[in-house]
Amino acid sequence: MQWIPGGVTAARGYLAAGVSAGIKRSRKPDVALVVSEASASVGAVFTRNRVKAAPVVVSQRRARRGTARAVLINSGCANCLTGAAGLQDALRVSRSAATALGIPEQELLIASTGLIGRRLPVARIQRAIPGLTARLGRSSHRLAAEAILTTDRLPKEAAVAATVNGHTFRVGGMAKGAGMIAPSMATMLCVVTTDADIAPALLTKVLQRATTETFNQISVDGDMSTNDTVFALANGRSGVRIRQGTASERRFTDAVVAVTGALAKRIVQDGEGATRVMDVQVTGARSDREAQACARQVACSPLVKTMLAGADPNVGRLAAAVGASSARFDPQQLEIAIHGRQVVAGGAVRTDKAAARTLLARPEVTVRINLHAGRACGRMLTCDLTADYVRINAGYST
Amino acid sequence: MQWIPGGVTAARGYLAAGVSAGIKRSRKPDVALVVSEASASVGAVFTRNRVKAAPVVVSQRRARRGTARAVLINSGCANCLTGAAGLQDALRVSRSAATALGIPEQELLIASTGLIGRRLPVARIQRAIPGLTARLGRSSHRLAAEAILTTDRLPKEAAVAATVNGHTFRVGGMAKGAGMIAPSMATMLCVVTTDADIAPALLTKVLQRATTETFNQISVDGDMSTNDTVFALANGRSGVRIRQGTASERRFTDAVVAVTGALAKRIVQDGEGATRVMDVQVTGARSDREAQACARQVACSPLVKTMLAGADPNVGRLAAAVGASSARFDPQQLEIAIHGRQVVAGGAVRTDKAAARTLLARPEVTVRINLHAGRACGRMLTCDLTADYVRINAGYST
Repeated sequence: MQWIPGGVTAARGYLAAGVSAGIKRSRKPDVALVVSEASASVGAVFTRNRVKAAPVVVSQRRARRGTARAVLINSGCANCLTGAAGLQDALRVSRSAATALGIPEQELLIASTGLIGRRLPVARIQRAIPGLTARLGRSSHRLAAEAILTTDRLPKEAAVAATVNGHTFRVGGMAKGAGMIAPSMATMLCVVTTDADIAPALLTKVLQRATTETFNQISVDGDMSTNDTVFALANGRSGVRIRQGTASERRFTDAVVAVTGALAKRIVQDGEGATRVMDVQVTGARSDREAQACARQVACSPLVKTMLAGADPNVGRLAAAVGASSARFDPQQLEIAIHGRQVVAGGAVRTDKAAARTLLARPEVTVRINLHAGRACGRMLTCDLTADYVRINAGYST
Repeated sequence: MQWIPGGVTAARGYLAAGVSAGIKRSRKPDVALVVSEASASVGAVFTRNRVKAAPVVVSQRRARRGTARAVLINSGCANCLTGAAGLQDALRVSRSAATALGIPEQELLIASTGLIGRRLPVARIQRAIPGLTARLGRSSHRLAAEAILTTDRLPKEAAVAATVNGHTFRVGGMAKGAGMIAPSMATMLCVVTTDADIAPALLTKVLQRATTETFNQISVDGDMSTNDTVFALANGRSGVRIRQGTASERRFTDAVVAVTGALAKRIVQDGEGATRVMDVQVTGARSDREAQACARQVACSPLVKTMLAGADPNVGRLAAAVGASSARFDPQQLEIAIHGRQVVAGGAVRTDKAAARTLLARPEVTVRINLHAGRACGRMLTCDLTADYVRINAGYST
């Protein structure tokens, strides 16, 4: 497997475009389209929030059919908590785009991101559709990646090529997300495209596993979105067939995990107001569930995240967060290390301030927590909590 | 029942003092002592954090005996994650104070609050003890309340008088807490004193109920402390006997809930960096557990708390947080009102920006969430998340 340039058009047989429809006042691109040249298998993972945006309701139904041709995404408006009218808005936009592409409406998947509770500006998006379809191309993947952003500072793309029996297939993707990013579900928007040939059921299984191992192990602020969606399209153009239970499934899973993992890490690096990333690795837990709960408690603790922001050598907060989680362990056995250097052991803090400050001041901080209570592991990627996060979110709607 | 002036010495037969031992560099008071003139029944609730500070370990053991004479509290150092040496430090300080008071060591309860991972300055505290005992008095309750503060801006005291069959008893208390304040446990330090006559087992039962209804329904930052402790002392000086299952138990419980409720609200008002308080009231849940989980999810959401900081009319975030909780409900039935004005109903946001901004700009914001799924209720008090919270906690140890 190797990294290759590009994003959603890195695999064969995909086109993309991104334009401004005027939803964002900044006039930055806000509508993206990804099209497969042939009908593609669909895998999809959606938010577990009980309050679901209109496009989530529509796409959940369509993804169940198993195949699709295109994905339309707008930023600047989440089309969530907009009632029955919001559902009609989603369907009207989707109908216009499907007509312009000459595909059945059921073959178009949709997603929205942005402010909750505001109606979708349907006419603006409809007016932008001819320009969007006219600009479709392999080289426009970056414009599409830019058009799905909200508070993100940078577009997020990744792609790999891998082989099965000497035959190459490709997996690429784009994602957005910087705030309202929480563990335990698909926490953002993401489109993964591949030219591998794979059945919808197996594609969904692989996507669920990749989501569990990547997007579900990140947190910016512990808040669960109403619009989270991860789509995967597989059009088979490489001729490489992926079969369940074979080496091809493992290769394909590795490729999808690599792409979603790279995108997940970029979401944390680009977390609202973030200046540092923390990789929280838990070992020695009694179960996978406890290991993950422990990693999550540390990664979501405002006191740990503000300590990281200030590189403040207050490492006792790490142990306090571990102790607050549901993980069972003996505090006397607990060991915590930062960059391999022990800071908590034998029920006591084991480092001086100057050393701890140096360890915490790096742009990427690795914390290893050994509970010495079992063999299970867990992991979370998180970022620091800064005054900029507060500034961004205290005035987001205005 | 009526509010009366004072705090831990409002009930008969209690003395208090607060002095500076030089633990805090600011030279503000940092050691407090509360003494009952007669042996008192003890009730106590401690942190559920698996990582427990040394004074918590000591006091848990002593509180089980059922009676005590005094409580010694220091601020500026939590004596947590200090290993076996920290336990010895706690015992040395406790021994000196008990000797100075002429009481058995087992009759002294202790608590500490402040930085985690630093050794207790034992000699400084020992040198301060003679001055502390010399200053004991009924009028020194405020100095004691000041001596237990860390990042708090204001001391927190409350007291009530109530009657049983025409005979008056009093309940008073003091508390500290502004950060590392989380629901679902005793989340701070608090001493409640009463001159009612009540058995230790019943006192503990009442204190647990009061903690559940007050301190466990507040959150500043969702972080669970390693040092949380609530003590209640009952010395019987009023001659009013509280008996289980009688009207006297109800009156006494009401009085304790009033005092702990007032102290809990002051902790939230004084939350680190806080400028506004939000009272989250959930009704129509399928169970008490789901109601409380829903209230907690809303009260702990960084996006809700930053929205409150900016009085930003982004009320969809309330619904997103409700949907992210474990509470089961139909999003079409969900109703959310702020100060009695409907903002979410029928699956849609129902308010304009200007109106929502006005509702959110008050110093105390009441949010009522009706899930329309059952009859259970829950409640949480929380404060906003501001840049000042980040500033305070990004450099707490330095």
